[in-house]
Amino acid sequence: MNKKIAAFGEVMMRLEAPNHELLTQANTLNYSFSGTGTNITAALARLGYSSYLVSTLPNNPIGDAAISYIHKLGISSQFINRAGNYIGMYFLENGFGWRPSRVTYSNRRESSFNTAADELYEFGHIAKIMDIVHFCGITLAMNDSVRKQMITFASHVKRNGGTVVFDCNYRPALWGENGYKDAKSHYEEILHLADVVMMNEKDAMFILDMKTEKIKREDQLTELIPNIYNKYNIPLIAGTQRTIKQDHTHSIRGFVYKNNTMTFSNTHTFPVLDRIGSGDAFTSGIIYGICEGFSIEKTVDFATAACILAHTIKGDTPMSTKMDIIKAMTYAASDVER
Amino acid sequence: MNKKIAAFGEVMMRLEAPNHELLTQANTLNYSFSGTGTNITAALARLGYSSYLVSTLPNNPIGDAAISYIHKLGISSQFINRAGNYIGMYFLENGFGWRPSRVTYSNRRESSFNTAADELYEFGHIAKIMDIVHFCGITLAMNDSVRKQMITFASHVKRNGGTVVFDCNYRPALWGENGYKDAKSHYEEILHLADVVMMNEKDAMFILDMKTEKIKREDQLTELIPNIYNKYNIPLIAGTQRTIKQDHTHSIRGFVYKNNTMTFSNTHTFPVLDRIGSGDAFTSGIIYGICEGFSIEKTVDFATAACILAHTIKGDTPMSTKMDIIKAMTYAASDVER
Amino acid sequence: MNKKIAAFGEVMMRLEAPNHELLTQANTLNYSFSGTGTNITAALARLGYSSYLVSTLPNNPIGDAAISYIHKLGISSQFINRAGNYIGMYFLENGFGWRPSRVTYSNRRESSFNTAADELYEFGHIAKIMDIVHFCGITLAMNDSVRKQMITFASHVKRNGGTVVFDCNYRPALWGENGYKDAKSHYEEILHLADVVMMNEKDAMFILDMKTEKIKREDQLTELIPNIYNKYNIPLIAGTQRTIKQDHTHSIRGFVYKNNTMTFSNTHTFPVLDRIGSGDAFTSGIIYGICEGFSIEKTVDFATAACILAHTIKGDTPMSTKMDIIKAMTYAASDVER
Amino acid sequence: MNKKIAAFGEVMMRLEAPNHELLTQANTLNYSFSGTGTNITAALARLGYSSYLVSTLPNNPIGDAAISYIHKLGISSQFINRAGNYIGMYFLENGFGWRPSRVTYSNRRESSFNTAADELYEFGHIAKIMDIVHFCGITLAMNDSVRKQMITFASHVKRNGGTVVFDCNYRPALWGENGYKDAKSHYEEILHLADVVMMNEKDAMFILDMKTEKIKREDQLTELIPNIYNKYNIPLIAGTQRTIKQDHTHSIRGFVYKNNTMTFSNTHTFPVLDRIGSGDAFTSGIIYGICEGFSIEKTVDFATAACILAHTIKGDTPMSTKMDIIKAMTYAASDVER
Amino acid sequence: MNKKIAAFGEVMMRLEAPNHELLTQANTLNYSFSGTGTNITAALARLGYSSYLVSTLPNNPIGDAAISYIHKLGISSQFINRAGNYIGMYFLENGFGWRPSRVTYSNRRESSFNTAADELYEFGHIAKIMDIVHFCGITLAMNDSVRKQMITFASHVKRNGGTVVFDCNYRPALWGENGYKDAKSHYEEILHLADVVMMNEKDAMFILDMKTEKIKREDQLTELIPNIYNKYNIPLIAGTQRTIKQDHTHSIRGFVYKNNTMTFSNTHTFPVLDRIGSGDAFTSGIIYGICEGFSIEKTVDFATAACILAHTIKGDTPMSTKMDIIKAMTYAASDVER
Amino acid sequence: MNKKIAAFGEVMMRLEAPNHELLTQANTLNYSFSGTGTNITAALARLGYSSYLVSTLPNNPIGDAAISYIHKLGISSQFINRAGNYIGMYFLENGFGWRPSRVTYSNRRESSFNTAADELYEFGHIAKIMDIVHFCGITLAMNDSVRKQMITFASHVKRNGGTVVFDCNYRPALWGENGYKDAKSHYEEILHLADVVMMNEKDAMFILDMKTEKIKREDQLTELIPNIYNKYNIPLIAGTQRTIKQDHTHSIRGFVYKNNTMTFSNTHTFPVLDRIGSGDAFTSGIIYGICEGFSIEKTVDFATAACILAHTIKGDTPMSTKMDIIKAMTYAASDVER
Repeated sequence: MNKKIAAFGEVMMRLEAPNHELLTQANTLNYSFSGTGTNITAALARLGYSSYLVSTLPNNPIGDAAISYIHKLGISSQFINRAGNYIGMYFLENGFGWRPSRVTYSNRRESSFNTAADELYEFGHIAKIMDIVHFCGITLAMNDSVRKQMITFASHVKRNGGTVVFDCNYRPALWGENGYKDAKSHYEEILHLADVVMMNEKDAMFILDMKTEKIKREDQLTELIPNIYNKYNIPLIAGTQRTIKQDHTHSIRGFVYKNNTMTFSNTHTFPVLDRIGSGDAFTSGIIYGICEGFSIEKTVDFATAACILAHTIKGDTPMSTKMDIIKAMTYAASDVER
Repeated sequence: MNKKIAAFGEVMMRLEAPNHELLTQANTLNYSFSGTGTNITAALARLGYSSYLVSTLPNNPIGDAAISYIHKLGISSQFINRAGNYIGMYFLENGFGWRPSRVTYSNRRESSFNTAADELYEFGHIAKIMDIVHFCGITLAMNDSVRKQMITFASHVKRNGGTVVFDCNYRPALWGENGYKDAKSHYEEILHLADVVMMNEKDAMFILDMKTEKIKREDQLTELIPNIYNKYNIPLIAGTQRTIKQDHTHSIRGFVYKNNTMTFSNTHTFPVLDRIGSGDAFTSGIIYGICEGFSIEKTVDFATAACILAHTIKGDTPMSTKMDIIKAMTYAASDVER
Repeated sequence: MNKKIAAFGEVMMRLEAPNHELLTQANTLNYSFSGTGTNITAALARLGYSSYLVSTLPNNPIGDAAISYIHKLGISSQFINRAGNYIGMYFLENGFGWRPSRVTYSNRRESSFNTAADELYEFGHIAKIMDIVHFCGITLAMNDSVRKQMITFASHVKRNGGTVVFDCNYRPALWGENGYKDAKSHYEEILHLADVVMMNEKDAMFILDMKTEKIKREDQLTELIPNIYNKYNIPLIAGTQRTIKQDHTHSIRGFVYKNNTMTFSNTHTFPVLDRIGSGDAFTSGIIYGICEGFSIEKTVDFATAACILAHTIKGDTPMSTKMDIIKAMTYAASDVER
Repeated sequence: MNKKIAAFGEVMMRLEAPNHELLTQANTLNYSFSGTGTNITAALARLGYSSYLVSTLPNNPIGDAAISYIHKLGISSQFINRAGNYIGMYFLENGFGWRPSRVTYSNRRESSFNTAADELYEFGHIAKIMDIVHFCGITLAMNDSVRKQMITFASHVKRNGGTVVFDCNYRPALWGENGYKDAKSHYEEILHLADVVMMNEKDAMFILDMKTEKIKREDQLTELIPNIYNKYNIPLIAGTQRTIKQDHTHSIRGFVYKNNTMTFSNTHTFPVLDRIGSGDAFTSGIIYGICEGFSIEKTVDFATAACILAHTIKGDTPMSTKMDIIKAMTYAASDVER
Repeated sequence: MNKKIAAFGEVMMRLEAPNHELLTQANTLNYSFSGTGTNITAALARLGYSSYLVSTLPNNPIGDAAISYIHKLGISSQFINRAGNYIGMYFLENGFGWRPSRVTYSNRRESSFNTAADELYEFGHIAKIMDIVHFCGITLAMNDSVRKQMITFASHVKRNGGTVVFDCNYRPALWGENGYKDAKSHYEEILHLADVVMMNEKDAMFILDMKTEKIKREDQLTELIPNIYNKYNIPLIAGTQRTIKQDHTHSIRGFVYKNNTMTFSNTHTFPVLDRIGSGDAFTSGIIYGICEGFSIEKTVDFATAACILAHTIKGDTPMSTKMDIIKAMTYAASDVER
Repeated sequence: MNKKIAAFGEVMMRLEAPNHELLTQANTLNYSFSGTGTNITAALARLGYSSYLVSTLPNNPIGDAAISYIHKLGISSQFINRAGNYIGMYFLENGFGWRPSRVTYSNRRESSFNTAADELYEFGHIAKIMDIVHFCGITLAMNDSVRKQMITFASHVKRNGGTVVFDCNYRPALWGENGYKDAKSHYEEILHLADVVMMNEKDAMFILDMKTEKIKREDQLTELIPNIYNKYNIPLIAGTQRTIKQDHTHSIRGFVYKNNTMTFSNTHTFPVLDRIGSGDAFTSGIIYGICEGFSIEKTVDFATAACILAHTIKGDTPMSTKMDIIKAMTYAASDVER
């Protein structure tokens, strides 16, 4: 069943030092364009949906490059405005073993997206067309104008019977020192509009200031998520718990909370090629499962497999087909496909 | 002792997306030229033998590039015809972790090798010169003309007292739906001519339709290989059993069956840089051991070490020297050689 | 004024040896996807039109990569079928000075486009949507099936009042030895349907077997084009005359013949970065001028400037905006734009 | 004679699309760090002087990379502050033939340099150490705070008997629509402090609003420069006149006006590898000539040769040694040096 | 506390085959400049000290490139002479899994450093300026002239109250067949001058010919190091014990012997990106700990963490900041820093 | 007619900074293997002859890489010894416009070739096999041992009726300050053995100390070459006169002096991609013309065209086929070959 999905958010330019080099060592950068919304809509385009970004990009050669890249990912640029002067950028130095990856941002607060006038967006019109619209906590962190646009858009979607998906992804660097305190009311405003929320126990404790006596992450999760579900009246909450092991493989377990029931995927362990954007693959898997009417069990397994595969793809953006993900769900380590 | 060895088979162009990228992501490809026969003769050239490819390549710039590459590998192009228009090609997307590598073929059925006229080859003349000639199941899969050439050549070798080596490597994509059924008689025809056969229990069960009640791969092997040895009257059968582990390291155990006796190497576990062509390294090790008069134990250990080292080399083609392999046989993880 | 334009033709994979190297020297290739139809529709997408390819690509990772690339160029893939097994490919070795560039083709006769069943295409439906549809002599060279598809499609366009554009581009390698003789009737069939034809005096003499006593290329052109215009009743004929000078700069003069009048652009001389696809830029400029209602003088100047700029862009596909072309029309050598 | 030279100005990150590609085509960028001050001090470091940048860079991995790069150029970072969050960036798409190069800036107004507090700089201390300090019109364009810092620093230099060099380089994009009008008073303020000014007739007419009836550029120059010399009481004015020819070679003629006398270099014509930063090479040549006590004739010839060589070097920054420049002054096209 | 540190030793050019290729496979090399002294001084420059190389490089474009690179690392070239004709070079083929890395040297015995006249060096002057000077066993292996320079320099340092650090790193290839026998007296000469010595039990047994009945490496170490400490009267001995495991992760344990007490770090296991130069990171950590007055426990932990991080950085030269190392000391596998 | 040709000389490793960068700017190098003898034999292999290098290479990974490269060029390594420790290397920084290319040598005097013992070579045996053997002035410059080997080998060739080709290429850097004086007697010794000598008027004047009153290069040539022809009794002398023009195109005219007659080619002007090794292409053309029995006119035209084409090929080594050269002889600037 073809669905129409949009995401509202900033398109970022990713500039990555190659071959595990530092910026002080390299003299070339690989670049691509991404962002939570970009990743979600690209992943769902690959799964067969019609997908759209609602965003603003500068009308200059970098904006042109971003638009071309978005097209390449299979996303429609029909609702992307061309205005303002700058694109948000981030530099990535890939870690290795004991050395963590390091991200350095350019000045994204002056970006076309973050300075776009309200009038540029036809939120009412877009909301009528879309089945699902995705928002995220990164957009929420930007400024009052963007936050207002987000709430306006989400309200339109709600009113038109569309599904509002919200990913809590909290970025400390964007909120500053008293960030959690400042963020809470903004998060609550969008949570009240959301049909599907991506979060885990850390978001509950830090952003929403929920309390628990539990020590183990799983116990915190199973206590706090039902509380949020009830308090904010959210139809479906989903997320992952990630562990990074001493040998630098990662472990992931996905969960969905719905109908007062917590459903977990198995815990999977895997090596990592490119960690960034893997959470967005999980989200896209949840959205796909919901739209396709998968059972909750199949939905969480599908999303978790999509998430794991996203760790094996260069770049932020998931590139797996439905077949790739289904194969990975019934995973046995496999030889060359030829 | 210098030996003359030839292989009959197609030279393929390998086009590999770099840095674990997909074809939809990359915009450059690394290319090289390979094929089972190329790999075997290159490996034995590096071990000191005079080696020759018996094949056909187009008389155009791609054919020129292939010839240069074959020379670079130390193989003589004296018996390579220049005719036809195309070279077989394959595109390789390297997998990572849960994502398997993926091979996409160009139209190799129209290649110079697969459309070469019989008259181009002086099989009788070449057979007189060579000590050993290598054939493989990939060539067998192509078409009647090529199969006929193969049988003609092998018969000449046999008649001149040379050693016929045959590697069963069965490629499902080449044989199509009822492949095993179609293939059986062709395999049997060449098995009757072969002195050394590379195979394992899967080939026995699927291609030669042998039955066993055993469940474990090792048990299947130790039951079926002696049956084939007797049924087809093959002087020596060798092969490997590979396991791919959850952490994506591989395990290999080599075996040789000769004089009614099964001899195994130890099972070794190792990380993989480039999996393709590693089986050909094993074959080249077996051929080398036989020609050098190694004991069976040393032969299987040498071949297994050659096979493991081939996983650590970029490209399809083994590049190890005798010294490299001997060192790996008495392997202890070693520091930089300087 | 937004227009809808489609092109019917094969998508080719271009594999280019970097840094002026030969295939025997390099070990990497740059790749992209192009073809006359791709170039035309990409150029017009950049000029602001809605553009579509009507073609067939394999349903495999190379087909996926081609589709992504087409999207990146701003072309809709809505009317591209996924069927068959192969994509046409060509290898490019860039010349320098006295050494000409060299193109080597893979087996494109077995490509998805050239083996596609008629039923895959909804020509009637597409013809109703489009304002203009572009065809070319390369497609005409392929086989009877593709030729029939082309005539069927062009007839539908004609019947629906759309504009049929035909580019004569004759490729000797595709037509074989008696090519001109074989080609003539096929060319005449499509010429009778065409509203806009791209050609020059060479096509008139060699394909259409027109006679002239004139020696100078310009005189041949001004004699023969009016004859064709009248004989085949073609509303508009356009094309270029190219001279390659001893210092390896190129000279181009564009022309349009319409209303019994020949209109020339100035002759311009310029250095060349990438020659392939520059003729398609001229065609796209002619189409744009016609659709925008430019005067004939402006149309031929615009098309010639678009053609010259295409020589300054890497790859087959024109990338210039309207502003870039307008600037080039009033050209004075200019410094860095900053 | 070793001299100490400082430059006050912003360090920019240059991000260049490789191989004449556009940003919509490429997926890698070459990066380096430059800026007028960087180029001047690097050039003079290579000529043997002790050189220093007075600037501010962010205390993050990009700032670290910039510092390493500045060290690599032989410049001392002793007077570079680490504060603020961003570095100014520009993206370069290299033109070819009729297609001009294109520069796209990131938001440099928020850069560390442009937001640095006055207290960060010890202008008085630095002025005491330096023989020469270089300023430029790009810095002048930024904001009141930076302009004030510039005037403060120049006044300190003046007071300490140092030489103030000012390059007028006016960038329209930085000054905006009524730029020339806005800029005039700021330029006049620094001109009154300057000992050496880099400019030509265009700066005289557009920035300083001088009038002339002359049509030819040379006549304008010889009329206006003496007027400025007298009006602003500037001891030495120098500059170049550049012509870009139809074959895309450039022509340059340098001049120095001093002691009421205009001295020209010969006009030289040359092909261009990298145009950006070549003006800074001319400036560094003038400074070197003055400091070394060259005759005016030798000074202008040396500076012009330095400028021409800078067009043959990748990147913004001149890399020629004194020997390289002397050789080029007595230039005859020369073969490989081996 | 800022310290001044110098190292006396050769600057080498490192030429590395990319992407795990062999020299017979690749056609490009990555190059950088390193050497034990370079690595030590670069590491301490990054930790905030003023650092200097005392060496000799040719006055040609390769020498220029080396100087630029040294500047980039933050090292002063004030005491580097420009004389002689050649730079020492080494080619690196990176191993993978069972295939060890392989180093091939150019003719470094003819290098500028190894042929430099004594008069080039102002050892007395430099010794007065420095707090610490580092020497190593590689220099000791070169020739009598260089050995004499080393002893002269170390004696000057000693006389001026500076700290002499000596790293035993014995390279069999440089000493030849009876190397250990030849080396012993040279090592003893410098050991008598050293305040800090880097070594482990293997150096004790092989170079200094100490005897032990112990079998386990740790037991050998704890028996022999105190004996050396007493015999040669060395204030502080430090070093590491490395184990390479079957899965090709490495294990390291650092130790310091001082005040008749052996202090060990924990044993850490980690994956390796670039093994070369990691020992120099340990040394720089020990020097830093001593200079900063760290406790012995903190010193050995800091040095061990610095050593482990150096395995995660491309190239020979450590690039970690103090903060990076402190974080690694309290290591828990961490996610992306953003 | 297949001929057997050998060359005696050193194989060099060429290390080239990419993209017109300097060694201080780049961080990668492209490498290949060349040398006058390599270039000559590679060119003749491509023209269809059996060609051999008589040389010595180290038995290490760099020697292996050189051997593979030589095979790739189609040259037999049958007479290449593996001994000694080093390969001669040169670093190339490609010039642009006014900036000349720059070559920096490693220490080639210690190379395997320059230190090879006489006993390694079977000159007598080889001389019996070859039709032609090529020597050059670079080898002559090395040392007495190599010179003696050269004379021994040439004498054997002479005695066996083979053709001795000698190229005077004099390299000032190798002969040192009184080079011409030192070189003369060595040159005369080999000239007395030579059948074909490559030289021009400069060699006559500087090496052989011939006098002329003429000013123009052509007049010097037509006076001096006949004198040498008579004095040294050389059957055939050939060479080129090169002019580098202000726009950095090169002009070449070839000549052959034989039977007391001077025959010139036309003078051709052309742009240059890679200048190094182009003289060797001329030599190979002369040898080919002689062996094939071309007229003198055709020989000099063929050699000149081969030389011009070699300027259009990356790397030192000519790569043109006979067909390429024939086409270039009847040259008209040509479009893409497709």
